[in-house]
Amino acid sequence: MEVDLTRTKMNGSKLILGIDPGYGITGYGIIRVEGAKMFCLECGVIQTSAKEEFSIRIKILHIELKKIIKKFKPNLVSIESLFFCNNAKTAIKVGQARGIILLTAILENVPIVEYTPLQVKQAISGYGNADKSQVQQMVKLILGLKTIPRPDDAADALAIAISAANHFNLKL
Amino acid sequence: MEVDLTRTKMNGSKLILGIDPGYGITGYGIIRVEGAKMFCLECGVIQTSAKEEFSIRIKILHIELKKIIKKFKPNLVSIESLFFCNNAKTAIKVGQARGIILLTAILENVPIVEYTPLQVKQAISGYGNADKSQVQQMVKLILGLKTIPRPDDAADALAIAISAANHFNLKL
Repeated sequence: MEVDLTRTKMNGSKLILGIDPGYGITGYGIIRVEGAKMFCLECGVIQTSAKEEFSIRIKILHIELKKIIKKFKPNLVSIESLFFCNNAKTAIKVGQARGIILLTAILENVPIVEYTPLQVKQAISGYGNADKSQVQQMVKLILGLKTIPRPDDAADALAIAISAANHFNLKL
Repeated sequence: MEVDLTRTKMNGSKLILGIDPGYGITGYGIIRVEGAKMFCLECGVIQTSAKEEFSIRIKILHIELKKIIKKFKPNLVSIESLFFCNNAKTAIKVGQARGIILLTAILENVPIVEYTPLQVKQAISGYGNADKSQVQQMVKLILGLKTIPRPDDAADALAIAISAANHFNLKL
C-alpha cells in the first residue's frame, strides 16, 4: 500500500482499474468513484488462446491492457495478489501474468495497489469467509448493477477495484 | 522452441543472452557463438533491494535488462523456465520476474526460447544428474574462462545461453 497518493488527489471523480490476473484469462473492471458512490464504467476479460505461441500471448495481454489504460486513464490500478497456491505450475503462470500486468501499468505511469483474495472479501462483504457468490452479489449492489457481471473474472476484477476504493476512501 | 529462426539466420557470429530469472537477483550472460565456438562477452546480475517498493524493483529489472539488450542486440534470449517449485510464494515471485523479463524482451523484438533446469543440465553436461558445480565447471570449459563466473546466478545464466546455442547449433 505504498502508493503515491498525490497522483490520486485530483478534483472530481477518480477511476480505478481492478485486475484479476490470469494466464489464459485476465479479468478487468473500471469503476468511477465519486465520494461514497461507485459506478461501473466497463468490465470484461482479456483472453488469450492456449493455441497461440507464448510470446504472442504475452504481447496480447500487454497490448490489450495498455489500450484499456490509455482509454480510461485510471488514477490507480488495483490487482489481486496471491501468496499461496496449491499448484506451483499455476502459481508460476499467474505470477508471470502479474509481472506482465504490473510492468504494463508501470510503463504507463499508473500507481498500483495489491490486495489478497482475503482482503478483497473483507473489503467487500465485511468478513473473510464470504463465498464467491456473496462477493459477487455485493459487487452488484455496491455498483448498482441490474445483474452480476459476467464472466466471473470480470466480477472479481470489479471487487478488487472496489477494495481499493474502500481502502482509499478518505484519501480519494 | 517455436522461435522464428529467420531472425537468427544472419552471417557471422550470433549473440545469445541467457537469463536466470529471480525476484531479488536475476542472472544474465551474453555469449557470442561462432560455429562450434562460444565466448563470454559479459555476465552479471541485476539486483534489486527488498527495501525498495515493489513497483520500483520491477522498473529497475525492466530498465537494466533493456539496457543490456540495447547494448548487445542479442539474436536470441534464452531463459530458464520453471514448472515446479516447492514454495508457492517463491513460484509466484519467480513467475512475476519471468513475466517482466519476457515482456521486456518482446518489446525489444528479441525472440525467446525457454529451457527447464533439467534441459540445461543435459545440454551442458550430457546428463540430467549433474550437480551445480559440475555444470559451472562445464560453463568455464566451454567458454574458455580462467575461473568460474560469479555469482552463481551469472554462471547459471551463461549455462542457459549455452543450452540455446547447443540446441540451435546446426541452424545458427
